[in-house]
Amino acid sequence: MIRFECDYNEGAHERILQRLLETNMEQTSGYGTDPHCDRARALIRQACDNEQADVHFLVGGTQTNTTVIASILRPYQGVIAATSGHIAVHETGAIEATGHKVLTVSSEDGKITPDQVKAVYQSHMSESSPEHCVQPGMVYISQPTENGTMYSKAELQALFETSRECGLPFFVDGARLGYALASKNCDMTLADLARLCDVFYIGGTKIGALMGEAVVILNEALKPDFRYMIKQKGGLLAKGRLLGIQFETLFEDGLYLEISRHAIDMAMRIHDSLEEQNIRFLYESPTNQQFPILPDHLLEQLRSQYTFSFWEKVDDTHSAVRFCTSWATRRENVDALTRDIAQLLRETSKAPLLAEALV
Amino acid sequence: MIRFECDYNEGAHERILQRLLETNMEQTSGYGTDPHCDRARALIRQACDNEQADVHFLVGGTQTNTTVIASILRPYQGVIAATSGHIAVHETGAIEATGHKVLTVSSEDGKITPDQVKAVYQSHMSESSPEHCVQPGMVYISQPTENGTMYSKAELQALFETSRECGLPFFVDGARLGYALASKNCDMTLADLARLCDVFYIGGTKIGALMGEAVVILNEALKPDFRYMIKQKGGLLAKGRLLGIQFETLFEDGLYLEISRHAIDMAMRIHDSLEEQNIRFLYESPTNQQFPILPDHLLEQLRSQYTFSFWEKVDDTHSAVRFCTSWATRRENVDALTRDIAQLLRETSKAPLLAEALV
Amino acid sequence: MIRFECDYNEGAHERILQRLLETNMEQTSGYGTDPHCDRARALIRQACDNEQADVHFLVGGTQTNTTVIASILRPYQGVIAATSGHIAVHETGAIEATGHKVLTVSSEDGKITPDQVKAVYQSHMSESSPEHCVQPGMVYISQPTENGTMYSKAELQALFETSRECGLPFFVDGARLGYALASKNCDMTLADLARLCDVFYIGGTKIGALMGEAVVILNEALKPDFRYMIKQKGGLLAKGRLLGIQFETLFEDGLYLEISRHAIDMAMRIHDSLEEQNIRFLYESPTNQQFPILPDHLLEQLRSQYTFSFWEKVDDTHSAVRFCTSWATRRENVDALTRDIAQLLRETSKAPLLAEALV
Amino acid sequence: MIRFECDYNEGAHERILQRLLETNMEQTSGYGTDPHCDRARALIRQACDNEQADVHFLVGGTQTNTTVIASILRPYQGVIAATSGHIAVHETGAIEATGHKVLTVSSEDGKITPDQVKAVYQSHMSESSPEHCVQPGMVYISQPTENGTMYSKAELQALFETSRECGLPFFVDGARLGYALASKNCDMTLADLARLCDVFYIGGTKIGALMGEAVVILNEALKPDFRYMIKQKGGLLAKGRLLGIQFETLFEDGLYLEISRHAIDMAMRIHDSLEEQNIRFLYESPTNQQFPILPDHLLEQLRSQYTFSFWEKVDDTHSAVRFCTSWATRRENVDALTRDIAQLLRETSKAPLLAEALV
Repeated sequence: MIRFECDYNEGAHERILQRLLETNMEQTSGYGTDPHCDRARALIRQACDNEQADVHFLVGGTQTNTTVIASILRPYQGVIAATSGHIAVHETGAIEATGHKVLTVSSEDGKITPDQVKAVYQSHMSESSPEHCVQPGMVYISQPTENGTMYSKAELQALFETSRECGLPFFVDGARLGYALASKNCDMTLADLARLCDVFYIGGTKIGALMGEAVVILNEALKPDFRYMIKQKGGLLAKGRLLGIQFETLFEDGLYLEISRHAIDMAMRIHDSLEEQNIRFLYESPTNQQFPILPDHLLEQLRSQYTFSFWEKVDDTHSAVRFCTSWATRRENVDALTRDIAQLLRETSKAPLLAEALV
Repeated sequence: MIRFECDYNEGAHERILQRLLETNMEQTSGYGTDPHCDRARALIRQACDNEQADVHFLVGGTQTNTTVIASILRPYQGVIAATSGHIAVHETGAIEATGHKVLTVSSEDGKITPDQVKAVYQSHMSESSPEHCVQPGMVYISQPTENGTMYSKAELQALFETSRECGLPFFVDGARLGYALASKNCDMTLADLARLCDVFYIGGTKIGALMGEAVVILNEALKPDFRYMIKQKGGLLAKGRLLGIQFETLFEDGLYLEISRHAIDMAMRIHDSLEEQNIRFLYESPTNQQFPILPDHLLEQLRSQYTFSFWEKVDDTHSAVRFCTSWATRRENVDALTRDIAQLLRETSKAPLLAEALV
Repeated sequence: MIRFECDYNEGAHERILQRLLETNMEQTSGYGTDPHCDRARALIRQACDNEQADVHFLVGGTQTNTTVIASILRPYQGVIAATSGHIAVHETGAIEATGHKVLTVSSEDGKITPDQVKAVYQSHMSESSPEHCVQPGMVYISQPTENGTMYSKAELQALFETSRECGLPFFVDGARLGYALASKNCDMTLADLARLCDVFYIGGTKIGALMGEAVVILNEALKPDFRYMIKQKGGLLAKGRLLGIQFETLFEDGLYLEISRHAIDMAMRIHDSLEEQNIRFLYESPTNQQFPILPDHLLEQLRSQYTFSFWEKVDDTHSAVRFCTSWATRRENVDALTRDIAQLLRETSKAPLLAEALV
Repeated sequence: MIRFECDYNEGAHERILQRLLETNMEQTSGYGTDPHCDRARALIRQACDNEQADVHFLVGGTQTNTTVIASILRPYQGVIAATSGHIAVHETGAIEATGHKVLTVSSEDGKITPDQVKAVYQSHMSESSPEHCVQPGMVYISQPTENGTMYSKAELQALFETSRECGLPFFVDGARLGYALASKNCDMTLADLARLCDVFYIGGTKIGALMGEAVVILNEALKPDFRYMIKQKGGLLAKGRLLGIQFETLFEDGLYLEISRHAIDMAMRIHDSLEEQNIRFLYESPTNQQFPILPDHLLEQLRSQYTFSFWEKVDDTHSAVRFCTSWATRRENVDALTRDIAQLLRETSKAPLLAEALV
C-alpha cells in the first residue's frame, strides 16, 4: 500500500534522527530550558528577522491552536475563522472546551477576506446590546489553508491591517507553513510573515520532524506568561530538548525549506500529470495537498493500492479526493500513482459517457 | 555538571532509538491506528493479564491526568487526591481548567488512606444540602508517590475497595510506575495493579522513552469515546506510531522492568551510602527518588557540580533535597556524588556543632 | 413611548404580586425546599400529566439553557440547534463557556427538521475518524421559535423520534411556551409536550412572572444531581420560594394559559390589521412576535412614539422589524400602533413607487 | 417552627414590595438599562462617595462571585481565599467550573492576613519554574466573613496594600455587607470600603431584597465589558428593573443600614442573653450570625421548635451551631429562643457533669 492520505505517514528526516542519536546521552534540564532549545529559538528568530520574537515549542497542532487561542481571548470572546478552518472542524471542540466560540465565516477555498473580518466585527459592534453576543476577539487563518490554497503577501498584509483596525490579534496556523513558503507561487518569506501577524507557528510534525510546532509571538502584549498556558494545556514536554534538537536541525542550514521544496515538486508532479489528462481540481492548490476530481469507480480501484482522503462528492459519479505529498514522498511512488490513474482513465475512456464528464 | 534533579535528563534508551531508525521510512496511518500501536497495545494487555483492557498512548503526564480525569467526572464533581499529588500542585491548574476541583486530603508522605477517602465521601453525603458542595467523583493516587513512597498491594486493594463502596472510580498515576514495580519492597505486579483500579497509566517519559504514557482502562464504563477526549485535549499524536514503537520496545522482552531496576539499584546505592554516613531522609523511599536532609552549606558547595531539587527547609541549617536516578543514570556519577558528599561531610565534621545536627 | 420591543417590559401579573405580598413574612427554608415550590411542582406535574417528572425552578433563560445543556453533554459533545437558536446567537457564548460547541443547522424560519438532525448525526458517525470532530450529543429547539413560528404536534413527535433513534436527548426551550400553547394554530398541549421530549422548560419571565423558568425533566437518566448543576451555574435562588409562589399562581387555575391567550389576541390584532393594509411579514407567526416588513422611512417616524426591534434589511427601502405582545399588552396601545402605521402608510401611498414595493 | 437557620427566610422589606407594586405596569427597557437601575446606580455611587464607580446588578451571591472572579483572572491564575471562604466550600465548584483554582489559606475565624497573601505570592514567585503552578491572580475576602467576624478598616487597608504590592486585584464579597456596616464595632463606612478594594458587592438578598447583589467596580482596569460576563454567566436579568427598584428603595434614604441595624440588635440580644448564661461562642461575632456552643441534648430539644444550622462538633457532648438574624427577625422570636435555651439549661444544670462543661 502506497500512502498519500496525509503528510505524516513516515517518521522524521534522517538528519533529525541522526542528531537525536548523537545527543541522546547528553544531560540537560527539562521543559525547554536546555541549550538545544535556546539555539533553535535563536535560529528561528534569525530566520524571522526578529530578535525580539518569543519562540516556544509545543508538540502538536490542535494543542498549539488551543493554547494560543485560549491565551489571547477574554472569556466572552470568540475567534473568527473560515468554516473550513482546522479549529472549526477537526479539533473535537478543543477551542470550545476552553470556553470560546469559533465565529465562522464562509469560504469557498479555505481563505477569508478582510471584508469578512470587518463585517463580523462591525455587525457585532453595531448591535444595540452587543453584550448579548460573543465579542470577536481575534482572527485565525491557516497558511497554507486546509484546502491547499495560499494567501499572497498582499492578502496577508490586508488581513493584518484590518485585524489591527478592529483591535483583533491576528494568528496564523502554520502547521504546513513550509509547504506555503516553498510553493512556486509564494511571494512571502518567513520574515514577511513575522511582520504581518501577531503570532504564528511553524509546523514541524508535517515537515520533517517526529513531532513539534514552533510558536512565534511577535506582539509584546501576547508574550507574558505563555509558558503557564503551555503547561496547563499539557504541551510542556518534559524532555523539551527533543523539540529543540529537531528545530535546530531544521533551521541551522535551510533544511526546513529544502525538504518543503521536495514536497512541492512531488505535488506539482501529481498536479501536472493529472492536468495533462484533463482532470479538474476542486481547489487550485500550489502546495502539497492536491484535490483532483475523479470518477468514483476509478477511485474504488485505486484504493486497492493507494491510500488517499475522500473529500466530497462532486456529482453522481465523481468525487474530489486529497493526495498529500511531504518531505518524505518518493518520486517512484508519485510516478506509480499518476501512471496508474492514467491507465485506469484509459480503460474508462472506452465508456464514453464518463470521459465526457472528465473534460 | 552531573544531573540528578529529575528523571528526564537524557533522551531515550538506545534500543528505542534504534527501533525508531529501523522503522523510520515505513508508511503507516496516523493517530495511533498503525500496527506498532496495535502490537504495543497487545503487549501491554498481556503484561496486565487482561485481554479486555483498552490501551491508549498519550504524550505527557499532565496531559494524561487531565484527559483521564476530565473524561470521568461530571461537571459538579471533584477528584480526591493528596495535597502533594501532582494534579494538586504541579499542573498549573490543568484539572481546574477542565472545570473540576481537586479535593485534597493531607498526607505526610504522599500516600492517602481508605479512611481519608471514606471521610471525604461521607462528610459530603451527610450534608443536609450536599448540592452546595462539590461532589466527590473519583480518587487519584500516584504509584509511586511524588515523595518516592509506594503503596503495598494490600493498601492498593483497600483503597480500591473503599472507592468501589463509595462509587468512585479509582485512578492510578503511574508516571514512574516502573520505579515502583522494580523496587525491592514491591509486592505488586502490573497484573495486580490492573485488577486493583479502574484506570492507570504506565509512564514512558521517565522510564526509557523519549516521551509517552500508556493509559490502561479496565472499567468498561470508562472506555467509550476516550479517543475523543484525547483528541480534544491535544494528546492524539499525528505520528502516533512513535508512541507505539516505543512501548513495543519497552514491553516486548521486559526492557521496561529491566531498566527500571537499574534506576532502583542506583537510587539504593545513593541511599545506602548516605545512610552509612548517618544522613537522615525526609521520606523513606524505596524508589528512584531519594530525599536526604543535608547541611545547607554542603548543598551550596555541591551545587557547583551537581544538579538536584530543593525540597524543603528542615531546620535553620538543613534542607531536604531530591536526587533522582533513572534508567540512564551512570554508576560513576552516583559514586562521584556519594564520594563528594562524604568528602564535604568530613570537612564539615571538623565543625563539631554541625556534625551533631546530622546524627 | 409605547413599548413593543420585547415581552418583558412590565413587572408581573397583579395576582402574582398580590401573592408575594400575602406570603411575604412567612418563614420558609431556602433554595426551593419550601412548601410553595412543592405545590408549584405538583401543579406543573399535574398540568403535564406526568407524576414522575422532576420540576426545578431557575431564574432566567440563558441560565436555564446553559444549565440543562451542560448537565446533559459529555465534554466532547455538542448540541444541535438552528443557526437562529437563542443558544447560538444571543447568549454571549454561554454554551461554549461550559465547553460545548453549538452544532448549527440552517433554518429559514427558526425551525429544524428530523432530516437535518439525522444528517448531522449520520455525517458524524460515517466519518472514518469521528473522534476528530465534535460528537452530536443532544438536540435543542425553541417552541415557539425565535421567529415566532411553531412546531405542530406531529413535527415535535417526528423530531423526538429521530432524536431517540440517534440516541440524542431532545430539549425544548419554552421561554415563550405559553405563547405557543395559546396560539390558535396550536394542536399541542402541555401534556403532549411532556410526552414528546426529554426535558423542556416553561417560561415565566416572559409570561406573567417577575422572573423564573420551570424546568421539567422527563427522562430518568437526566434527573440525578440536577440541583448540583443549578447551584454551580448560579441558578439556585436563596429565596427559592419566590419562584414557587409565582408558578403556583400561574398554574393553580389556568392563569398561565389565560394571560398567554391575551398576548396572542393582541398579536393577531396587529397581524390582521397590517395584513389588511397589504403588509407582508418576514415569517408567518401565529404567536406573540410579529415580523412585518415596513418602509424604512415609516419606521423612522414610528420610532418617535414606539419601541420595536429591528430585525433585518429586506431591500433598499424596507426592513423587517419585530413587535412583541405579552400578557401585559394593552389593547389601546395595539390600536394606537396599527392606526399610526395605517396613517403613515396612507401618507406614503402618495409616493407611488414605495406603495408598489409593499404589495 | 421559628427559623434562625439563615438570613433569607422571609420575602422582602414591605417598602420594596410596595415600590414593586407602584411601578409594576411601567414599561421599561430590559437588562438593567431602565431609569430605576440608573437611579439605583447613582444612589450607590453617592453612598460610596465615588462618582466613577461602575455599578451592576446581579441576582445571587454564587453567580456574583463567579462572574467577578472569572472576569478578572487569566486562565492560569487562581484566587486566594480563606479555606472557609464561600467560594471555597459552598458554591459547588462554581469557580473551578470557570477554570480557576481557589488557592486556600488557613483561617481560624474566617479572616486572612496580609502576611498570608504575601506568603502565597512570594512562594509562587520564588519557584524556579513558577509556570508549573497556578499563578495567584487576585485576593478574595468576605466582609463580614462566613463566621460572623469582621475586618477593621486598618485590616482592610493592610490587605489592600499588600494585594496592590503583589499586583493582585482585591475583591470583597459583601453578601452580608450591611451586617458589617451596622455592627457596633464597625469603624468602616461604605465609602471607606470603596477606597480600600478594587471591586466589591453589596448584598441585597440577605438584607431586605427579594434577591439581588450590587457589584461596585472601582478599578478602571476591571470595568470594560463586564456586562458580557454578566450575560454569559446567566446573571443579566431580563426585567433588570426589579433589581434597580429594590436597590433604589434600599439606598434612597438609608433603609439598607437601618434594617441592617435591626438585625444586629437582634443578634446582640441573642449573644448577650447566652453570654449571661455562661455559654461560650465558637467565634466572637459582632454581626448577624452567632455561633454558640451548646449541649447536644439541649440542641436536640430545641430543634422541635426552632431551626438553626449545625456548625461543628466541639467535644463529645457539645456542638457549635449558628443562629442568624436578619432585617426581618422578630423580637418576640428572639426572646422566645433565649428564654427556651435558658429554661433547657436550667433543667440541664441538675445534671452537674454537663453544667461544668458549659463554664
